[in-house]
Amino acid sequence: MSSKSTLQKSYPWVTTPLVASAPMLNIALPPLAVSVSAAAGLGFLAAGFDVSDLDQKLSQAANLVHQLPPSPLTKHYADTGILPIGVGFINWGADLAQSIAALEKYRPCAVWLFAPEDQPRGLVPWVERVRAATRGATQIWVQVGAVGEAVTVAETLRPDVLVVQGSDAGGHGLARSASVVTLVPEVVDALEARGLGTGLPVLAAGGVVDGRGMAAALALGASGVVMGTRFLASEEANVARGYRAEVLRAEDGGVSTVRSTVYDGVRDIHGWPRRYDGRGVINRSYVDAVEGNMSAAENRRLYVTELEKGDAGWGPDGRLTTYAGTGVGLVREALPAGEIVRRVRSGANDIVKRIATAED
Amino acid sequence: MSSKSTLQKSYPWVTTPLVASAPMLNIALPPLAVSVSAAAGLGFLAAGFDVSDLDQKLSQAANLVHQLPPSPLTKHYADTGILPIGVGFINWGADLAQSIAALEKYRPCAVWLFAPEDQPRGLVPWVERVRAATRGATQIWVQVGAVGEAVTVAETLRPDVLVVQGSDAGGHGLARSASVVTLVPEVVDALEARGLGTGLPVLAAGGVVDGRGMAAALALGASGVVMGTRFLASEEANVARGYRAEVLRAEDGGVSTVRSTVYDGVRDIHGWPRRYDGRGVINRSYVDAVEGNMSAAENRRLYVTELEKGDAGWGPDGRLTTYAGTGVGLVREALPAGEIVRRVRSGANDIVKRIATAED
Repeated sequence: MSSKSTLQKSYPWVTTPLVASAPMLNIALPPLAVSVSAAAGLGFLAAGFDVSDLDQKLSQAANLVHQLPPSPLTKHYADTGILPIGVGFINWGADLAQSIAALEKYRPCAVWLFAPEDQPRGLVPWVERVRAATRGATQIWVQVGAVGEAVTVAETLRPDVLVVQGSDAGGHGLARSASVVTLVPEVVDALEARGLGTGLPVLAAGGVVDGRGMAAALALGASGVVMGTRFLASEEANVARGYRAEVLRAEDGGVSTVRSTVYDGVRDIHGWPRRYDGRGVINRSYVDAVEGNMSAAENRRLYVTELEKGDAGWGPDGRLTTYAGTGVGLVREALPAGEIVRRVRSGANDIVKRIATAED
Repeated sequence: MSSKSTLQKSYPWVTTPLVASAPMLNIALPPLAVSVSAAAGLGFLAAGFDVSDLDQKLSQAANLVHQLPPSPLTKHYADTGILPIGVGFINWGADLAQSIAALEKYRPCAVWLFAPEDQPRGLVPWVERVRAATRGATQIWVQVGAVGEAVTVAETLRPDVLVVQGSDAGGHGLARSASVVTLVPEVVDALEARGLGTGLPVLAAGGVVDGRGMAAALALGASGVVMGTRFLASEEANVARGYRAEVLRAEDGGVSTVRSTVYDGVRDIHGWPRRYDGRGVINRSYVDAVEGNMSAAENRRLYVTELEKGDAGWGPDGRLTTYAGTGVGLVREALPAGEIVRRVRSGANDIVKRIATAED
């Protein structure tokens, strides 16, 4: 079966090529996830590394789905009891037993596994227990950022979907990686050469912000895309006004954002395995740490003080973190998440048609 | 006039969308440049930062063009006297007067300007004198790596072509930049918003290795592509056997290559403005410098000793530099340069058609 029909079969309410929303920590809550799925995409709820409120989040998501007008999505939910959103874990921190209990109860259509201490072996118990707990109702997505990682993950875990994240992505990812321009085709080739590619959809993440990026991802061999940065400016994203304003302000993302571990430090988050860092808009925390040689303790202290400023704490002269990808300059207005999904999908279709018949 | 017809008019022998070869220092000599143009692409000869032998290189290129069988390219050359290849300068070092003398004599169809100390003002005399010397026969290409740079270059220099290089590129480029996934669309939008986009073709460079990358670049808004890494494995590239073997060996380019200034240091090249570094395959020079804290002098000394090993000096345990982009893992065989041009172009066409009619 082709990767496209695989996705269509697994998530019968989606329109392919698929648009999914990334499980952005603290930001991708039930309203965003459900809105994306309701627009025939696939929305992910962020469980992150502290899953103590996962049950509550999934309960809220189920309630939101119940309130949707009738559609193929609500019918699928009524017929199968499979909650038509996914849940994203940060596996170096997430508690397995607590997660399994919530997944068993709410049966989301997918889990997205990312950043175990030990890749891929640390995910083996997750894959086995998730599959057992929901008898396969919950599919396994695994995020990778390199070709070698993609191959070992595919061999060891036999995931249902591989999320291939390139260097342009906002937030956390491999500190060293290629962009999806070379990473996606090399992953696709490596899987195919090892007989692992059949029916394993590859989704491109990192730098996809509009229809152009989506059309590019399809050209590179992806079956769909995951977007994070673009959804920061969705009405449903749980971001402070200051954060969103900074996303809308920042431009020239290759220059205005940077990959760093400084933002983890000031936020007092210390669990990330060493191979990861996170991309965010450059602000005082970064400048002081890197150019000013400020101690981590002092930088953290100033960050905590800055929290009192609220929305005014974001921005290039602020200290509150604006995780965002290099595509931040392409994000120019806040829209409902469903509208973003529809615009990106139809934009991609238009571009594919345009270049197929191009005289320009 | 559309960007595509602009290119077709300026370089009447080319097939659009355009495939150009990058002016890789010491590697892109007349045989590579002429072979690429002879395949209806546009080949660039590297003049670099030391132009003392540019006259001789252009003379060799002219001789090679004279030896080609009759074609639209040879007819254009006979009719106009415009040499159907371009010349790439590294402008922090290249001598203007010496360069102008050679350009006036041989009238190449384009110059590619890159990395002046002062961007864009350092290029103003180049643009003025090139245009005057060849009365417009030699077009102006300028390489940029950020949106801000693209806008100021377009405003100040009014180039004929903008080469937009993303972070995946091999060799030198901006130390901090986005990949072409976000950079090309943001540049296109920024030019258009300022009325600078009309008739100014944008070519994507960095990570384009095959038809998939080229189709992606077109989706992102480029009028064509520039490839460097792929041509390292062309028969005409002036690379040592050891260099080429390393290009064919290396895979997972996001992990196996790195952006660094270490390779400039060991090669005793100190003129690059601070905003640039270069991407190459990781080897002992890099590991010793970054993990081993080896002094630059000792690293240089070991590099010089390694030169005696010849081809055996390349590789992950060697010290001779393998500049290459993250697409190095997609380069799997050495082919004639013309064959590369044709395969990439037809591959891109196939992919565009496939995704336009995709049921897979």
